[in-house]
Amino acid sequence: MPAKAILISIGDEILYGQTLDTNSHWISGELDSLGIRVMKKVTIGDTKEEILSCLAESEKLAEMVLITGGLGPTNDDLTKPCLVEYFDTHLVQNKSMLENIQKLFEKAGREMSELNEKQADMPANCTPIANVIGTAPGMWFERNGKVIVSMPGVPYEMKRMMKDTILPKLKEMFIEDGIYHRMIRTIGIPESVLAQKIKDWEDSLPKHIKLAYLPTMGSVKLRLTTSEETKAIKQEVQDQIDKVLPTIEKYVYGFDDDEIEEVIGRALKNSGLTLAVAESCTGGYLSHKITSIPGSSGWFNGAFVPYSNKLKNQQLKVDEKIILEHGAVSEPVVLALAKNVREEFMSDVGVSISGVAGPGGGTKEKPVGTVWIGYSDKKKTVAKKFQFTKDRGINIQYSALAALNMIRINLDKD
Amino acid sequence: MPAKAILISIGDEILYGQTLDTNSHWISGELDSLGIRVMKKVTIGDTKEEILSCLAESEKLAEMVLITGGLGPTNDDLTKPCLVEYFDTHLVQNKSMLENIQKLFEKAGREMSELNEKQADMPANCTPIANVIGTAPGMWFERNGKVIVSMPGVPYEMKRMMKDTILPKLKEMFIEDGIYHRMIRTIGIPESVLAQKIKDWEDSLPKHIKLAYLPTMGSVKLRLTTSEETKAIKQEVQDQIDKVLPTIEKYVYGFDDDEIEEVIGRALKNSGLTLAVAESCTGGYLSHKITSIPGSSGWFNGAFVPYSNKLKNQQLKVDEKIILEHGAVSEPVVLALAKNVREEFMSDVGVSISGVAGPGGGTKEKPVGTVWIGYSDKKKTVAKKFQFTKDRGINIQYSALAALNMIRINLDKD
Repeated sequence: MPAKAILISIGDEILYGQTLDTNSHWISGELDSLGIRVMKKVTIGDTKEEILSCLAESEKLAEMVLITGGLGPTNDDLTKPCLVEYFDTHLVQNKSMLENIQKLFEKAGREMSELNEKQADMPANCTPIANVIGTAPGMWFERNGKVIVSMPGVPYEMKRMMKDTILPKLKEMFIEDGIYHRMIRTIGIPESVLAQKIKDWEDSLPKHIKLAYLPTMGSVKLRLTTSEETKAIKQEVQDQIDKVLPTIEKYVYGFDDDEIEEVIGRALKNSGLTLAVAESCTGGYLSHKITSIPGSSGWFNGAFVPYSNKLKNQQLKVDEKIILEHGAVSEPVVLALAKNVREEFMSDVGVSISGVAGPGGGTKEKPVGTVWIGYSDKKKTVAKKFQFTKDRGINIQYSALAALNMIRINLDKD
Repeated sequence: MPAKAILISIGDEILYGQTLDTNSHWISGELDSLGIRVMKKVTIGDTKEEILSCLAESEKLAEMVLITGGLGPTNDDLTKPCLVEYFDTHLVQNKSMLENIQKLFEKAGREMSELNEKQADMPANCTPIANVIGTAPGMWFERNGKVIVSMPGVPYEMKRMMKDTILPKLKEMFIEDGIYHRMIRTIGIPESVLAQKIKDWEDSLPKHIKLAYLPTMGSVKLRLTTSEETKAIKQEVQDQIDKVLPTIEKYVYGFDDDEIEEVIGRALKNSGLTLAVAESCTGGYLSHKITSIPGSSGWFNGAFVPYSNKLKNQQLKVDEKIILEHGAVSEPVVLALAKNVREEFMSDVGVSISGVAGPGGGTKEKPVGTVWIGYSDKKKTVAKKFQFTKDRGINIQYSALAALNMIRINLDKD
């Protein structure tokens, strides 16, 4: 049985919908890769009673409780006083934590406030965890073989603390064997169609290999899980993957942690090719996705975001007549944009997107969600039309994903 | 006392850290604006026992329980069977839901599978909620004046269902008076410095006005909350805002729901000005943030993302000698980029970003996190250097935010 964890996020701002909690998402992934099972995540407000009762309940159910948030210097931050009460202890100023906070202020050339000084007061029964990039130290409590950890809610401070101190300590205390995942990543096929296609294979899976469908925006991931991580099990899972692959090969863009933009990046790099993008309705999002990958400058030359029609014809030499005759959202325009951005940006592959993201701009012929995508390399220039949703944000994401998939498919063909 | 809600997200993929739960974040904001208090959010896995015990506990504590996820057509989706067991009922095929699913498949020109047909089977005691854009209907249960709602986990299906059906029904059942928030949004000042600056004002606040500091990436929001929404209370809160404003005016970019990109958009639109962007290390993210605003095409002409140095001098005519002498991350380069993108893209304002996002590319003189930002309008061209973090993702976000703030400050000056 893997060790169990409960994550508690504290903060009214999360309950009120003003802050998106990405901390518990990141922590889940890290614990999962250690083989610790997150059994529950709870978000509660800055309210003493709720924090105390949630702590008590969680300590009963899991071997470790990881808390984020509520450690700021201001009065609405209640995590530390609650932990003091929960463990029936008191605060003591910790010199090393104080020095750390002082150093931070010196480095920034700012004066330290009284509120910040108080952040060095630590519950007497905890092991303080240094925060090298922020003013709120973490706290590590242990009793009866169980661990309760409190961390700041600022994501990069929490991550640094987890990586440097908490994950290594948890690994040492709790990890014997683990959980083993493999993932097959598909794009361009709905979950139910995929399920039908692989039904026979799914039914034939041995009981100790669990299959899950993880649909996300425009893509479905198939996850195979076992609770053992032996060499034999790993091979067995690989054999099952090899068995199902021929049935769904054209939809599979990668495995495990592969993101489609990374898969394309590797393919371009391995072939010594470079990419340029002209994106209108996605407004920079495709380029942002691509450049989120460290090292993308090795194969990505750049992007042009023509939000006004004037820019399309002036900068990328798309004939004004074509735009007037067919409209900016049309096959001839994305063909020209893909070819021209490839040439103008001195690249091997060019991709273009032009569509009606919404909410405005839709017509009867081209309703909101109509998107044309163009692809051009030295051998061919092609385009494809897509009809997405009524939602601007979703259309932007789908369009970028479809453009990436179009690059993948066309690179494969060459 | 406002009505209380508990949100339950169901899905192993969330606990394993493979899917970021944005649903509960969105639902929180919607309920909050209705005056419903989300007291807790819980995420649990696809496990019968945990779903059942979480349902029982939540029904005890809150007037409404909103569930997302676990309604897919495949075998690992357990929400519906659990609800059937929880309410001790059975499934009945619902004709109208079946027709709806059939229509969706007809429209898509695809064949309906047996698995999808089963999605029209509904617990006998619930009111089914039509899903006009997906195959999983929602379910509305009522007993003893309390409500339990189950919705699909696909964000845009859930949102549509909430907007069309669930929110109006909850409003009718539960809303008498409400919760009233006002927000002051600041940028460029750390939480603790802000807290010191407004300490006297904070201490003088009447007890029925609660203040909270909500720090997010590069900005701190001050939220004033009251549990009443009378005209007198609204005026009292406004008076308190007017009282504190002079102390922090230069850091305040907006109020309530204002996003900085919207504030800038309004300012540009009102002055009849247009904007163009040349962004290197942010790789399209600034442009993406700007174009996420519907209607941004009215004042945003476009962006150029020169990821390779070659593009900088070829497309935006930055003298190659300047790049060779000072490097791409330098004051002269961002000055030239801002000016040239403004002129080349026929815009009134030009903004440029060039920096070392990391993880690679840092040097002793220009370590990771060094970012130059340029601003140019008809009267002046200026640049500013920033030193951000070691984290690529954070540097990209901070840089875009700093560029937006630089536009705000310089537009104000004109």
